[in-house]
Amino acid sequence: MAVDSHAALTITAFDWVPDFARGFVRDLRPRWACEEIGLPYAIRLISARERPGWYYDDQPWGQVPVVEADGRILFESGAILLHLGEKDDRLLPRDPAARDRVICWLFAAFNSVEPWAIEQANVSIFARDEEWARLRRPGLARETGQRLDRLQTALGDRDWLAGTFSIADIAMITVLREFERTPMLGDRQVLAAYVERGMARPAFRAAMAAQLADFDGANAPQATARSSQ
Amino acid sequence: MAVDSHAALTITAFDWVPDFARGFVRDLRPRWACEEIGLPYAIRLISARERPGWYYDDQPWGQVPVVEADGRILFESGAILLHLGEKDDRLLPRDPAARDRVICWLFAAFNSVEPWAIEQANVSIFARDEEWARLRRPGLARETGQRLDRLQTALGDRDWLAGTFSIADIAMITVLREFERTPMLGDRQVLAAYVERGMARPAFRAAMAAQLADFDGANAPQATARSSQ
Repeated sequence: MAVDSHAALTITAFDWVPDFARGFVRDLRPRWACEEIGLPYAIRLISARERPGWYYDDQPWGQVPVVEADGRILFESGAILLHLGEKDDRLLPRDPAARDRVICWLFAAFNSVEPWAIEQANVSIFARDEEWARLRRPGLARETGQRLDRLQTALGDRDWLAGTFSIADIAMITVLREFERTPMLGDRQVLAAYVERGMARPAFRAAMAAQLADFDGANAPQATARSSQ
Repeated sequence: MAVDSHAALTITAFDWVPDFARGFVRDLRPRWACEEIGLPYAIRLISARERPGWYYDDQPWGQVPVVEADGRILFESGAILLHLGEKDDRLLPRDPAARDRVICWLFAAFNSVEPWAIEQANVSIFARDEEWARLRRPGLARETGQRLDRLQTALGDRDWLAGTFSIADIAMITVLREFERTPMLGDRQVLAAYVERGMARPAFRAAMAAQLADFDGANAPQATARSSQ
């Protein structure tokens, strides 16, 4: 496990989330990337219920993850994955054409698939008892289904989106897992197998275990702003 | 104007869209970036109403833009903007810290703001007569408003997101324009001024004129697959 409180790279995560979100919070992405290349990382825990005011200086919307590395602050999972990818060709190939493919799929996960996952979470979790959500569900299921059908076709018989495993797969698999509580993946065996393939990787399992351990208070104490650390 | 049918870089765009979408189609983004640095680009027009089957090999969801450059195909606005940014420091600074800021904001536009613009377009245009859309509008307006308030605070008194103008502004301003038909920007003068500042740039105006000209059939004939060109 790559968690090391003295590491040069720090990932900000929540100290608690509701049960439905455990194992799904987005700091899983940089944790997974670090585990893939054996890069040690420290964890800074903040409260999700009362997000500290200073944290909005690091992350405009108070979300996680934020990564501090080399004295610089990075926000947005995609930017963080790209930063980590630049460190190791096991995450981002150096060949220009292969690199292009990874970056196209990285943005695709965040802009062409995750918006539908965000709306899905709204209608099935956050607003599930609201009338608009009940009326919206069938149409959203159709639209999302078409979108995932196209993704399945594009993946085809490849193991990974850009040929070899990359940050694009960390992004896309964590996005697709957001559909796990719907029939979306069960109805699409190629995508279901793709997600399973990702989740079977030792680095994914280590990242998941580390996120869950932090909810049990096993690691770092509650963090404060960098200036007072 | 940088449109040149012999250019080494080709942007795929639609030959027609409904009136409400004119000037808003996403090929505006790479056009704008090319205009900023005087990089010539050719246009390949496809039909939005009957998207050619072969096009899904280039773009999994049949959307625009796609860019062909140096014999390679790029999809997703974010990946294309990053590719163009690498060509010129007027789009993406070379200083590592400044570069990081641009890339964080580039992903923020596509993952932390545009998902709300996509849902807004749904409830106000595509599904506007549906009951769920009517019921969803007030809550969505509140959520989107909070998100834009945070963005406005983060922008503060800077002219551009990362200090100097960059691909992050091309991304964020084109995303914010998707709210133009709502009171979202009018209620937030800092963001409204930011969007106006972007749209006043000569490169934006040239890109907009070129997109509109293509809807009038002023430029290239209908394109076919690359292999038959």
